[in-house]
Amino acid sequence: MAARSAAAQSPDPLIVEPQPWAQGLGDGVDVTPYGLPIRFEQDVVRRNVPWLTADTISSINFTPIHALDGTITPQGCAFERHHSGAIELSKQDYRLMVNGLVDRPLVFTYADLERFPRENHVYFCECAANSGMEWAGAQLNGAQFTHGMIHNMEYTGVPLRLLLEEAGYDPAGKWVYVEGADASSNGRSIPMDKALDDVLVAFKANGEALRKEHGYPVRLVVPGWEGNLWVKWLRRIEVTDAPVESREETSKYTDTLADGSSRKWTWAMDAKSVITAPSPQSPVPHEAGPLVITGLAWSGRGAITRVDVSTDGGASWQTARLAQKGTPMALSRFYLDVQWDGTEMLLQSRAMDDTGYVQPTKTQLRAVRGLNSVYHNNGIQTWWLHADGSVENVEVS
Amino acid sequence: MAARSAAAQSPDPLIVEPQPWAQGLGDGVDVTPYGLPIRFEQDVVRRNVPWLTADTISSINFTPIHALDGTITPQGCAFERHHSGAIELSKQDYRLMVNGLVDRPLVFTYADLERFPRENHVYFCECAANSGMEWAGAQLNGAQFTHGMIHNMEYTGVPLRLLLEEAGYDPAGKWVYVEGADASSNGRSIPMDKALDDVLVAFKANGEALRKEHGYPVRLVVPGWEGNLWVKWLRRIEVTDAPVESREETSKYTDTLADGSSRKWTWAMDAKSVITAPSPQSPVPHEAGPLVITGLAWSGRGAITRVDVSTDGGASWQTARLAQKGTPMALSRFYLDVQWDGTEMLLQSRAMDDTGYVQPTKTQLRAVRGLNSVYHNNGIQTWWLHADGSVENVEVS
Repeated sequence: MAARSAAAQSPDPLIVEPQPWAQGLGDGVDVTPYGLPIRFEQDVVRRNVPWLTADTISSINFTPIHALDGTITPQGCAFERHHSGAIELSKQDYRLMVNGLVDRPLVFTYADLERFPRENHVYFCECAANSGMEWAGAQLNGAQFTHGMIHNMEYTGVPLRLLLEEAGYDPAGKWVYVEGADASSNGRSIPMDKALDDVLVAFKANGEALRKEHGYPVRLVVPGWEGNLWVKWLRRIEVTDAPVESREETSKYTDTLADGSSRKWTWAMDAKSVITAPSPQSPVPHEAGPLVITGLAWSGRGAITRVDVSTDGGASWQTARLAQKGTPMALSRFYLDVQWDGTEMLLQSRAMDDTGYVQPTKTQLRAVRGLNSVYHNNGIQTWWLHADGSVENVEVS
Repeated sequence: MAARSAAAQSPDPLIVEPQPWAQGLGDGVDVTPYGLPIRFEQDVVRRNVPWLTADTISSINFTPIHALDGTITPQGCAFERHHSGAIELSKQDYRLMVNGLVDRPLVFTYADLERFPRENHVYFCECAANSGMEWAGAQLNGAQFTHGMIHNMEYTGVPLRLLLEEAGYDPAGKWVYVEGADASSNGRSIPMDKALDDVLVAFKANGEALRKEHGYPVRLVVPGWEGNLWVKWLRRIEVTDAPVESREETSKYTDTLADGSSRKWTWAMDAKSVITAPSPQSPVPHEAGPLVITGLAWSGRGAITRVDVSTDGGASWQTARLAQKGTPMALSRFYLDVQWDGTEMLLQSRAMDDTGYVQPTKTQLRAVRGLNSVYHNNGIQTWWLHADGSVENVEVS
């Protein structure tokens, strides 16, 4: 086994010479009322792919999942997607209308929302287009870009059910239509069963106020379902008897099949996983010996129960260690601690959830869905680890 | 019951006039590679109490718990305490020595640490001096200042046990002495049983690298035990047969009793709670009617099982709702949803953990510990909510 450490008697100047940082005083507490990452971590940021959308206003960036560990995503580097830019809307100016098939159309201020019972849950939010470029084969060289349209935060909010009850929703109301206060309005229809089940009208993420780019002061949280439904700067909830069939749920966020027809109402994000390290942006910096393989797994239909890892492109599998018992609609972190022999590996992971679903290969997905899709690609990802420690995005058949 | 909302037909200009933020484009994704809170939240920051220590180098600031919800503390506003300032130490320059009663004294680089199996856990970190000023009576008018020397994050790190095993610790080694790379070194002795149990050598918090002020790149995580043991910029771990009895565990971080003798080795933080809203910095902004009372509870000896809330200064108690099942040595969020009659209340909370321990009153604590203590004040806090919604820090006998 290769060494993971040097002997303490090594003439390493960082050990035997006085350490400069121990010779004087550091920063006082007044330096950082609100702290930012240290300058050495300046590359661990959201990144966009400039050619992906027409300009940055209608665009998206990606969480640096290749550089993170654990499961919580800090708001500062959690991916953001918006259709007409991130707007600035104060709590004082905030209004939320509940109308349509209700006994009492209502308008809530932010202060009103704070008077309803709150819940806390950790949930992932994944853009339906996450990994979308990979339908056409291995395209983007980095986990941040192939799988980084996801984040996982602890939300605090009011169950949407309570607001619908306050307004007195009509039993004829089978859907809610939700829209944001930004110019795009990003309107989406959600079945009433889901609206009454676990949807939150959220105002905090990871304990603090939502960031501007995540919908400050209020966004919708739709556990397990595609991120486009998680309407930011939430302005209006209309109870309707039928779906609106808006732009965002017809020409967009539907899945065109091989025959040209489109699947719609494909809201839930199926079980998926990705190895975050080693990965193209997180190469192996050492020689053969102990190596930690780690990644993320999630399911929009329940809790992750198991993740398998292959080092030979899917020919054989080992069950990875889950850092914690999986919880519904939240990221799970997995680890596989291996002795690397220093030769190339084809790394894959496959997730399983408590419905019994097993993450499919890209080949299996394409056999059912064809090649016309953009959204809902949950196929198994392959990273080719070379002997020099570098990693490439590849496909195996 | 007072209204929690206005009728939708209200002539509120924010509803009936075009909303300016819906008329144009907001920020693109290139604006915030790493995001910060929106400017409206600029008061939700760490604050210090200038007179508490001689200068800001040897000082502390406080988490704005009065303005947060949920349980996770963002690193950016998580309290920090250091004894000679926050130092800047790169991963490249980082070294960790394990020496003393070991078969093989070793030095680990940061890259070495990344090759050991990792764990993830959410734990609170509380300064032993949290609420320390309150021994002398109600002193500080705000939950941030009375109880804000606490944060709660998801840590990723290597069990200390694995590093001790790698070095081959001697069975005669009953303690470890841990020290930091800053000028203060902040050396502390930890019993070997604890070191082998759940202590982590951590490099990530809430998924990302530790912040400079939290010990970047590596700090110790000592679940449930006082924050001073959570050595930042961790430099050395020496296996010893006896405690070192350093400055930080003799003249400091001991509890002087009424007779002048001092308790020492009082590492575990006993069960404690505080109502974060309403509180002096989070007054009630509305009239009588629905009111959410919320707060935090924690125990360094296990999981929170129950929190009771009193609105009459401890004469009667109601069991609050825990947002999630308590987990060991982590913050729990509690809520009590009440109909406020608009008159004054004396708000208190008391925590219970899975050892059966019940948080004591300040009077009970003082009967046992006297008035000479600075540390380990876990007494029940009282907030006096006035009819106008303002809140004061008071004591009830």
